Amino acid sequence: MTISLPTITDIDAAAKVLAPYAVRTPLLTSPALDALTGARVFLKPEVLQRTGSFKFRGSFNKISSIPESKRASGVVAFSSGNHAQGVAAAAQIFGMPAVIVMPEDSPATKIARTKGYGAEVVLYDRYKEDREAIARDIQEKRGATLVPPFDDPKIIAGQGTAGREIAEDLLALGVTPDIVSAPVSGGGLIAGIAIATRAKFPNVTLMTAEPDGFDDHARSFASGKREAHSNTGKTICDALMATIPGEITFAVNSKLVSRGVTATDAEVGKAVAFAFRELKLVVEPGGAVPLAALMHGRMDAKGKTVVIVLSGGNVDADLFAQLIEQN
Amino acid sequence: MTISLPTITDIDAAAKVLAPYAVRTPLLTSPALDALTGARVFLKPEVLQRTGSFKFRGSFNKISSIPESKRASGVVAFSSGNHAQGVAAAAQIFGMPAVIVMPEDSPATKIARTKGYGAEVVLYDRYKEDREAIARDIQEKRGATLVPPFDDPKIIAGQGTAGREIAEDLLALGVTPDIVSAPVSGGGLIAGIAIATRAKFPNVTLMTAEPDGFDDHARSFASGKREAHSNTGKTICDALMATIPGEITFAVNSKLVSRGVTATDAEVGKAVAFAFRELKLVVEPGGAVPLAALMHGRMDAKGKTVVIVLSGGNVDADLFAQLIEQN
Repeated sequence: MTISLPTITDIDAAAKVLAPYAVRTPLLTSPALDALTGARVFLKPEVLQRTGSFKFRGSFNKISSIPESKRASGVVAFSSGNHAQGVAAAAQIFGMPAVIVMPEDSPATKIARTKGYGAEVVLYDRYKEDREAIARDIQEKRGATLVPPFDDPKIIAGQGTAGREIAEDLLALGVTPDIVSAPVSGGGLIAGIAIATRAKFPNVTLMTAEPDGFDDHARSFASGKREAHSNTGKTICDALMATIPGEITFAVNSKLVSRGVTATDAEVGKAVAFAFRELKLVVEPGGAVPLAALMHGRMDAKGKTVVIVLSGGNVDADLFAQLIEQN
Repeated sequence: MTISLPTITDIDAAAKVLAPYAVRTPLLTSPALDALTGARVFLKPEVLQRTGSFKFRGSFNKISSIPESKRASGVVAFSSGNHAQGVAAAAQIFGMPAVIVMPEDSPATKIARTKGYGAEVVLYDRYKEDREAIARDIQEKRGATLVPPFDDPKIIAGQGTAGREIAEDLLALGVTPDIVSAPVSGGGLIAGIAIATRAKFPNVTLMTAEPDGFDDHARSFASGKREAHSNTGKTICDALMATIPGEITFAVNSKLVSRGVTATDAEVGKAVAFAFRELKLVVEPGGAVPLAALMHGRMDAKGKTVVIVLSGGNVDADLFAQLIEQN
């Protein structure tokens, strides 16, 4: 099979589509974080993005490409919560109905916010049922268009606009990054960011960041082919539980990404608390994994210029309260 | 007495002094907040500033003006916590000793962070002792330079750099603001912001935002002269408890600021929780007062372009946890 891979031209086009609707998130610096890590760190806070995560970018770009004739039938998606909100919010802007298939153990805030954007939510058992089958069934019955979470050129191009902004802001500052790292589940965000940042900085090192035990990307980079993680346990990083890299995303990432780093739930909790205390940003556990990996010395970052993507901030108040009080 | 008032030239000079050390905070937008308020809102998140509040700007500008010959004797300041951190961090950069006089009921995080910047902290009873007398005593004994919290042209010019950035960013976007509002205690921040924003937008309306009952600025604007608030009670807005506007700050603010708005502690708690859920920013109660006033209809902002300054984010984890879980 020949896969058509997204390019920087697709990302430039997505940036135009998104401009009136997405938040152009800034690139932040923190003297406290620089002092702690010995690196020059730039943070890309996608927590500030519409819907509280980068997912709005890809969803909006994909949904904008659905032909007029198919819009009335709406969209369907499966997601643990951030893609759910991205799809729901984007569909709402286009006046399209949206059905979102979500695990019943999704954070309450993610379910509530998805409904808040006007979507119909169908819950399923993450450990027993097949979400893709449920979504396919809805897709067939309603004629709805599936908005996949990551393995799609339009989705990847949309997420890549975050990388395009990173490159643009660094160029304006006259800064060349050594490392760019983002949280990874299916690999759509890092694929888009890799394409966009490599276009301007051909020597930059891209690193995926995954929860300990859910390291399918790290394993896949090591073996050179798509490997599943073997973990059937749980993690506080509910956003990063995909079991295997996507086909399209891995076709991009296996070329452009250098390696994968991981962080334990305990380390992620410390990163969430650090972001609360020092960065004054609300970051959900899954969004804080590269920050955790950086803080715990996994990136060999001392003396280097590092861009850390904080991908989302949709965390239940109870869990957040627990993490900031215990760390 | 003739008071020498700071001007836009002083703010431009402060911006040059601060550039290598302060964070140039962005201007953020939130589709969720625009939808809630019916206004076009821009947020100036000084929570992202070095030390977690705007106070670093004024302290650094003031301390940079202390002559070499006086630096070894250090600085002294009194503060409920944010100015404390600003002074401590700025003094540390100049290698100067710092003594900070803080109320014993200051948030633990503010005391710990002040010590973290290398300062010596002297605690006093906010309701029984005179902090200015304690600071004056230290000043005399050690030959230290007093860094006042607000009533000083260098302090006001430093805080004004936040307003200068607001004006610069709005001009770049081609946007003219109708209202600019910031939290107020002694009035230094709003004075600097008023000078800087009025220089570019002569018709903009400036509004102070104070906790209900601690409304000395609102009362002073109404009567035309400096009035104390009569409240001896408590508020969760520990940063905004000054009893009367400063002389220099009021000389500026009585000319440039149109009126004062207030918000109750309950409304402020809701604003802190909203910032957590929707803006993904950690804002301390005192820093959220203008957001609370906007959310509760006190600014007549519908259809208008409003800039809200979120002045600080140094809040104890326990209080923050309580506010986000209860609201």
